[in-house]
Amino acid sequence: MPYFFEDYIPGMETSFGVYDVTADEIIEFGRRWDPQPFHVDPVAAEHSPFGGLIASGWHTCGMAMKLIVDHGGIAPESSMGGAGLRKLSWEAPVRPGDRLRVVVRVLESRASQSKPDRGSVVLEVDAFNQDDRRVLNFELVGIIRKKPA
Amino acid sequence: MPYFFEDYIPGMETSFGVYDVTADEIIEFGRRWDPQPFHVDPVAAEHSPFGGLIASGWHTCGMAMKLIVDHGGIAPESSMGGAGLRKLSWEAPVRPGDRLRVVVRVLESRASQSKPDRGSVVLEVDAFNQDDRRVLNFELVGIIRKKPA
Repeated sequence: MPYFFEDYIPGMETSFGVYDVTADEIIEFGRRWDPQPFHVDPVAAEHSPFGGLIASGWHTCGMAMKLIVDHGGIAPESSMGGAGLRKLSWEAPVRPGDRLRVVVRVLESRASQSKPDRGSVVLEVDAFNQDDRRVLNFELVGIIRKKPA
Repeated sequence: MPYFFEDYIPGMETSFGVYDVTADEIIEFGRRWDPQPFHVDPVAAEHSPFGGLIASGWHTCGMAMKLIVDHGGIAPESSMGGAGLRKLSWEAPVRPGDRLRVVVRVLESRASQSKPDRGSVVLEVDAFNQDDRRVLNFELVGIIRKKPA
């Protein structure tokens, strides 16, 4: 995967994974950041519309982000932080025992007009489960340093 | 704040807070979910464009979500999960010592055509720091149960 702004070529696509989802981690993340019953309470979750524990959508974002950073999709040499998301969909529940993988696609790349050392890239991120069902999709706008002169 | 779909009236606005940001939590969250140098390594962060540790943007989302759920902005009686985000901006760095508050505004409310027991709402969420600088903005699409008949 790319290391500097110039290396993010629109159309480029890379896959990362796997991430194994556990009930313990779903509950731990839920208690901390999104304490809704179907994220933290297995009994209440059984009676929820989901029929069992599901990961917080924010947790699924964390799983995807961890995979991306660990695999160099965003590199410590060049990342200057995220500006935001153009959109995000939580498309299917993520459950204990699921095994996720991530696909990152470079959608756009634009050199900064005002700051010659950087540019912005738009990365489309998909996460799929073991049944190849897409569970998460988002478009991340990141600021990336150019290659040192 | 609302408890069922019918209680989410567009234009309604509520504030929650405070959330105190610590360096320890920034590093802990970063190591787990977004291990970029400026989230996990105080020395590397000093030499980054941010001049010091900043919270992962996903961490800031978690802080906001925790405040919303803890204060009933999304209620256990009626929440049927999030569908996604229409947009999200990380507008300013979140640093150790910051004190955040959240404002939630109901933008839209639409009864489901196919499922008579629920509707979708669009909530605009802003997080501000102690200087009233907006650090985070997103629009969350949530599925909310109607009042029991």
